[in-house]
Amino acid sequence: MSRSPTQALVNYVVEARPEALPDAVRKEAKRTFLNWVGCAVGGSHHETLDIAIAALSPFAGTGTSSVLGRAERTDPLHAALFNGISSHVFDFDDTHLRTVIHPAGPVASALLAYAEYRPVTGPDFINALVLGVEVECRIGNAVFPAHYDVGWHITGTTGVFGAAAAVGKLLGLDAQRMAWAFGLAATQPVGLRDMFGTMTKSFHPGRAAQNGFTAALLAQKGYTSSEQGIEAKRGWANVLSIAHNYAEITENLGKSYEISVNSYKPFACGIVIHPTIDGCIQLRNAEHLDPTMIRSVDLRVHHLVLELTGKTSPKTGLEGKFSVYHAAAMAFIDGTGGEKQFSDEAVVNPNVIALRDRIKATVDPAIAPDEVRIKVTLMDETVIEHHVPHAIGSIARPMSDADLERKFQDLADDILGPQRVKELLAQCWDLERFNDVGKLAAAARL
Amino acid sequence: MSRSPTQALVNYVVEARPEALPDAVRKEAKRTFLNWVGCAVGGSHHETLDIAIAALSPFAGTGTSSVLGRAERTDPLHAALFNGISSHVFDFDDTHLRTVIHPAGPVASALLAYAEYRPVTGPDFINALVLGVEVECRIGNAVFPAHYDVGWHITGTTGVFGAAAAVGKLLGLDAQRMAWAFGLAATQPVGLRDMFGTMTKSFHPGRAAQNGFTAALLAQKGYTSSEQGIEAKRGWANVLSIAHNYAEITENLGKSYEISVNSYKPFACGIVIHPTIDGCIQLRNAEHLDPTMIRSVDLRVHHLVLELTGKTSPKTGLEGKFSVYHAAAMAFIDGTGGEKQFSDEAVVNPNVIALRDRIKATVDPAIAPDEVRIKVTLMDETVIEHHVPHAIGSIARPMSDADLERKFQDLADDILGPQRVKELLAQCWDLERFNDVGKLAAAARL
Repeated sequence: MSRSPTQALVNYVVEARPEALPDAVRKEAKRTFLNWVGCAVGGSHHETLDIAIAALSPFAGTGTSSVLGRAERTDPLHAALFNGISSHVFDFDDTHLRTVIHPAGPVASALLAYAEYRPVTGPDFINALVLGVEVECRIGNAVFPAHYDVGWHITGTTGVFGAAAAVGKLLGLDAQRMAWAFGLAATQPVGLRDMFGTMTKSFHPGRAAQNGFTAALLAQKGYTSSEQGIEAKRGWANVLSIAHNYAEITENLGKSYEISVNSYKPFACGIVIHPTIDGCIQLRNAEHLDPTMIRSVDLRVHHLVLELTGKTSPKTGLEGKFSVYHAAAMAFIDGTGGEKQFSDEAVVNPNVIALRDRIKATVDPAIAPDEVRIKVTLMDETVIEHHVPHAIGSIARPMSDADLERKFQDLADDILGPQRVKELLAQCWDLERFNDVGKLAAAARL
Repeated sequence: MSRSPTQALVNYVVEARPEALPDAVRKEAKRTFLNWVGCAVGGSHHETLDIAIAALSPFAGTGTSSVLGRAERTDPLHAALFNGISSHVFDFDDTHLRTVIHPAGPVASALLAYAEYRPVTGPDFINALVLGVEVECRIGNAVFPAHYDVGWHITGTTGVFGAAAAVGKLLGLDAQRMAWAFGLAATQPVGLRDMFGTMTKSFHPGRAAQNGFTAALLAQKGYTSSEQGIEAKRGWANVLSIAHNYAEITENLGKSYEISVNSYKPFACGIVIHPTIDGCIQLRNAEHLDPTMIRSVDLRVHHLVLELTGKTSPKTGLEGKFSVYHAAAMAFIDGTGGEKQFSDEAVVNPNVIALRDRIKATVDPAIAPDEVRIKVTLMDETVIEHHVPHAIGSIARPMSDADLERKFQDLADDILGPQRVKELLAQCWDLERFNDVGKLAAAARL
């Protein structure tokens, strides 16, 4: 290894130019951004965000930046925190499948908050987003799975680097200052996995955005730090992981792009149930199935489905996300699996319960994680079989642009209204042509 | 182990009452506080703080709280950060010798910033300070040395708990909310040792103060978190350390006090040179030595002295802190070893260099870390020998109140003026009688 990983990333980020990005990468950046805006607007009225705003707003600075989906404006550092929280609160945001990093939360939350503080053009914004995602996912690739297995929430621990790199790029940091920003990021990792299941989980991407933003601001003014923040003997990788492979950081920089393998959840629940929901929706639509027509459903699933989501009688919306039976019933009834299908009301609806109780699931060792086999027996004894080799949202079958738009509408229509959502979607697709991306943020505010 | 360490600390902090504190503990808390105020005022015009304020003030909220030693006021969260930075920037603050935690930085910085936001009485302030120090040092005792050896700056990683507990106590959190504050603290550790030697080192206690303060504010409003933040399988202790002994946390709570073994540096440099400086000052004063009378000086020292501070020709003030020769020469010339004795000017002063070059140091395996043997040969061939069995500032020979006052004056006189410093000292000793400790902070502002 001839190059220091910190120095390799620093030089790459400092030198990378928007016009060097391949078209497909720019396109994926817009999809990542659009999905993030939808999730942040959708989560913006969750009590997690209500509480965070109530607790911290008394200490916030001048309100230059929007809290998406709400009326409040706050200082950019707090906007980064708040939008990072709301974008993750439904666990519905994007996933870098190899590392389970949710890339947009830390990076886009910092960038959009900055863009309302100082004008940023569309191409510069997209470039910074791509670079931030590249930095966090490459650092993640270098330490996964050891770093995650020990108990770090990798989105918060690598996300702080992504946010620092992205905001540092917009601030025009030179290599010396960018290296300091990386050092200041390294020293403020966020997120232990023990917090999963509490509000603190969504604090992690938000705080990572805020910490990385802070690191870049300090470095810009000359606040010195380590220049080997990642690889030093007592630096980030050695202290936070028992194993690492720095080639994941240093090789093919500028040739491959981690944002190209970003994925977007079609359904608002754990990814292991996605093949089932997908298959039930396909059956429902192809066969024009009505729940009353269904006598029984047999699912053949990957073993993780029953390990993680085997709850037969969920009592709350959150528990519903851990019930493959509830999820399948909702897919037959509503034809989708958004946040509304996992509400507290949905899981106690008698019609849902009646169908849920007619659904069985069996582990089949031949079934892959993104696969399902479904057999539906109708009241008239007709049997319909269906196979989903790769669920929607998997690498093999990514969400289409139309799928992403529908997901966005499901999340945001009730908050911003369908007309504003339509306009906002158009603006997201049009991101490259903005002279001032901050205006897009304002359009996503109440 | 019957009690969870998190729950044990939470219950202790929630229930601890100011009137239960032994007199000696209250006294030590005032010494800890006074030493911290002196260090924070003394460091307040260092460029590290200038840069931090320049970078972050544009984003700060309403200026309720003082930046000690300066004219600025800022929101309490930023005041916690800034005062934490300045209190550590000279590396002259207090030390819990067993863990090398600098206890006051994270805790007092958060508390005083809070006390200007909401009134706090002297007894409540002292109680919260004692509790915060107890929490951070007990958690440190449980994981030291494994946690420090792997590369964590233990002041920042445990300090966030101390700040959360202390501010949480002032906020009156119940046990449920205090547990969440601990969880929110656990998930935001600050500080890698690779940052030592850069401005980021002093960022650690400041950010720990700010993070702990934030944790308490969020928990107060009901932001949920883990209730086993310290000991959970994927909680703080297991993720950040390969070894731990929870009895250090749970035993003798309310019976022993870690603040009782806090220590205060008499000299503004690494603790290994302190016996030498102490001995040279004693010789100078007892024998009325003038540098021109000294032909040569022979030091017999512990091996760490030459390993860490063997620089024979320092070129900057910072390098002077790593030269036992420079430190000894300054002790003979000025009779002290404050921050001024380690200025850039002092190390290039020809009179200092002339004496420094006549000083030799030899490792002696029989010498303890807090010990030195000194032999001075005068120009007239007289030989004077002197032995310091325990340096001033060690556990065996703590700084007296008068020593602490002199140190405070050396640090603060040039900034606040001798008259205001005298008044401020009197106020620190009088801390228990304050109805509103925030007024003391205002008295330490320009």
